[in-house]
Amino acid sequence: MRYELYYWPSIQGRGEFVRLALEEAGAPYVDVARAKNGEKRMLAQMHGRASHFLPFAPPFLKFERQLIGQTANILLFLGARHGLAPKADAGRLWTHQLQLTLADLVAEVHDAHHPIGAGLYYEDQRREAKRRAADFTAHRLPKFLGYFENVLAANPRGPTHLVGGRTTYADLSLFQVVAGLEYAFPKAMKRAGRRHPHVMRLHTRVAARPRIAAYLASARRIPFNQEGIFRHYEELDR
Amino acid sequence: MRYELYYWPSIQGRGEFVRLALEEAGAPYVDVARAKNGEKRMLAQMHGRASHFLPFAPPFLKFERQLIGQTANILLFLGARHGLAPKADAGRLWTHQLQLTLADLVAEVHDAHHPIGAGLYYEDQRREAKRRAADFTAHRLPKFLGYFENVLAANPRGPTHLVGGRTTYADLSLFQVVAGLEYAFPKAMKRAGRRHPHVMRLHTRVAARPRIAAYLASARRIPFNQEGIFRHYEELDR
Repeated sequence: MRYELYYWPSIQGRGEFVRLALEEAGAPYVDVARAKNGEKRMLAQMHGRASHFLPFAPPFLKFERQLIGQTANILLFLGARHGLAPKADAGRLWTHQLQLTLADLVAEVHDAHHPIGAGLYYEDQRREAKRRAADFTAHRLPKFLGYFENVLAANPRGPTHLVGGRTTYADLSLFQVVAGLEYAFPKAMKRAGRRHPHVMRLHTRVAARPRIAAYLASARRIPFNQEGIFRHYEELDR
Repeated sequence: MRYELYYWPSIQGRGEFVRLALEEAGAPYVDVARAKNGEKRMLAQMHGRASHFLPFAPPFLKFERQLIGQTANILLFLGARHGLAPKADAGRLWTHQLQLTLADLVAEVHDAHHPIGAGLYYEDQRREAKRRAADFTAHRLPKFLGYFENVLAANPRGPTHLVGGRTTYADLSLFQVVAGLEYAFPKAMKRAGRRHPHVMRLHTRVAARPRIAAYLASARRIPFNQEGIFRHYEELDR
């Protein structure tokens, strides 16, 4: 049985965290909205009455009769099925906790260019975005990266993974966040990278994993662009 | 064994979602930071080296040797232990999905009064807050409430619970969100309430549950105030 991933077809966005997990797992999946008429099918699935498990927004994943929404929740599900998280309760929750903290960071990255409303154009909230992005790069970004640096340093199995000695979906997500931050805030990340060597090394290591490297080199990987969560505006990256 | 809840002692904030679950479960717990020197103990626990499961921020919960952070993750843990979520995989994930969507709403409520930076005073981002709150009450609030109204209406077991026919932590959290919104945005909620009768009835019903009613009437319930996530500023509630 193939997974069906439903996400906006032209951006990495939150769907990318799910794509990376599916790719690392070598799991068969269809990226539904990227096929012909796919976006229509996604919206029909989302607003349809086929399931009472209504998603609030993409991404959501269909597997057999289950419809699962919320990025971190999808990863909780996939992590257990594909060995991308520890089986024992404590490790499973710890991995999920890290993912939820990454989700908080991702929401803050989005709001750095859309501090007033997701429904408004960037140009209509540019002044506010400058203020918010300045606060983000000065305070929030170092706080989050410092946190993950500490988590890596404190791992009893060494600083090569966030959880234990194996790759989890949290590692894949931290890779993605660093990749996105380097696209969106190259100057801020150049400074920050030096102070967070474990984080940067994890990013490099995940990118080199065979299935991830193959995925990144394929047409399945949508390039970063100015429609997604990670956007590069010169004026927001001092 | 008692649970130890670590959260800021003077606000409901995100800790309140955990308090409500513990109260409904009748689980013995200590609200650590509210005791003498408690805030100091919380910060020591948070920055200490006793566990490598470092929390990013309060709330976090200690149980035996486990330290669990991220509100929704704590509820995932408590839900399974205290029958506040279905045991089967599909229902467990669905409950968690709803909680994560509530968490997104809570983050947007916070940012309605702090759109530029959590580290800045409200007064220093008042102009931006007015714009963001207008967008929030016009677009985001109805979207979220409409979503939960649809979920209740689509529940095959009837619109009295979000998940199946029993109270889950998602119900408790939706109660709390509605209570907070009524405090923060009384005008907007008066309009919105009429259009979302299932949501409003769920709020009333949860408030009347014996353990929740007893909790709400006790000194353990911190009143809403202008330091928490839900704050009332006249100018943000048109």
